[in-house]
Amino acid sequence: MPLEQGQIQVYTGNGKGKTTAALGLAFRACGRGLRVLMIQFMKGGGPYGEHLAAQKLAPLLTIIPSGRPGWVKRPVPDPEDVELARKAFAAATAAVTGGEYDLVILDEINGALSFNLIPEEELLALMKLKPGSVELILTGRDATDGVMAAADLVTEMKEIKHYYKAGIPSREGIEK
Amino acid sequence: MPLEQGQIQVYTGNGKGKTTAALGLAFRACGRGLRVLMIQFMKGGGPYGEHLAAQKLAPLLTIIPSGRPGWVKRPVPDPEDVELARKAFAAATAAVTGGEYDLVILDEINGALSFNLIPEEELLALMKLKPGSVELILTGRDATDGVMAAADLVTEMKEIKHYYKAGIPSREGIEK
Repeated sequence: MPLEQGQIQVYTGNGKGKTTAALGLAFRACGRGLRVLMIQFMKGGGPYGEHLAAQKLAPLLTIIPSGRPGWVKRPVPDPEDVELARKAFAAATAAVTGGEYDLVILDEINGALSFNLIPEEELLALMKLKPGSVELILTGRDATDGVMAAADLVTEMKEIKHYYKAGIPSREGIEK
Repeated sequence: MPLEQGQIQVYTGNGKGKTTAALGLAFRACGRGLRVLMIQFMKGGGPYGEHLAAQKLAPLLTIIPSGRPGWVKRPVPDPEDVELARKAFAAATAAVTGGEYDLVILDEINGALSFNLIPEEELLALMKLKPGSVELILTGRDATDGVMAAADLVTEMKEIKHYYKAGIPSREGIEK
């Protein structure tokens, strides 16, 4: 059954669980036969656990990572990083408007805005373009006021405590 | 590769994304070949999307819902609800200590405490029993101070805005 009343959900904040919540949404949606695309921004260095698991939910779930390993420069990013983000954003626009997907997740898109890889007005325009048959999920810390105002749901993931401060590294199967 | 330095993660707060983040963790872990068990408290009325999707990740992922449809009575729950929660908690203890699973998720366990289905001291004892080879995830709003103090990571999911206030109902594939 196709989705009706598709909403725009934003997961932001400095706590763990933003990308993971989006993966959980993708997983649940596949259980109902929805067609899901996740486009990841600034996510080089994989494959990560989610990419390996996604193969088991194909063809319902597709995850497309973009970006290079390492951090994007602030405040002026390398042209190569801008180019990779722009290509990913073009794919996102096609996915949101093309009718092939019920659930589209733009993972770390808020980061792509705050690192000056994508202009805010382009994301706001895409949010306006979204048809009612598509649920759109936007993740990443530092969501702009404009993006939050245009969204239907905003959850802030707030870090109360985190084990990385106790020296626990990023672990395969948990963080990546 | 078995997990090392298994941590205890808590997802609490009034915002959307707690169970969903736990599902995302389960999904990613399966991509790395970890063995995952999710036990859900107060989760009658299914099957939901996550139960249908879990079949596709078997045998790595098992989700066991417990409880009856509808709300548990406050402050004194029906004996039948207590009994169902206690059975689920016994299964959780066996899973955390038995060596069969790398990742154990107790979904809505915080709710089970706040609805007086499970005593806090039993959950605290289980957290102490957890071996280093197991990652333990606890979800649900109103996590107690004691549970948060004993955890290694706590994220508060904070509702900034939610579309249910605009009259959007719980939808198949998104909320359930």
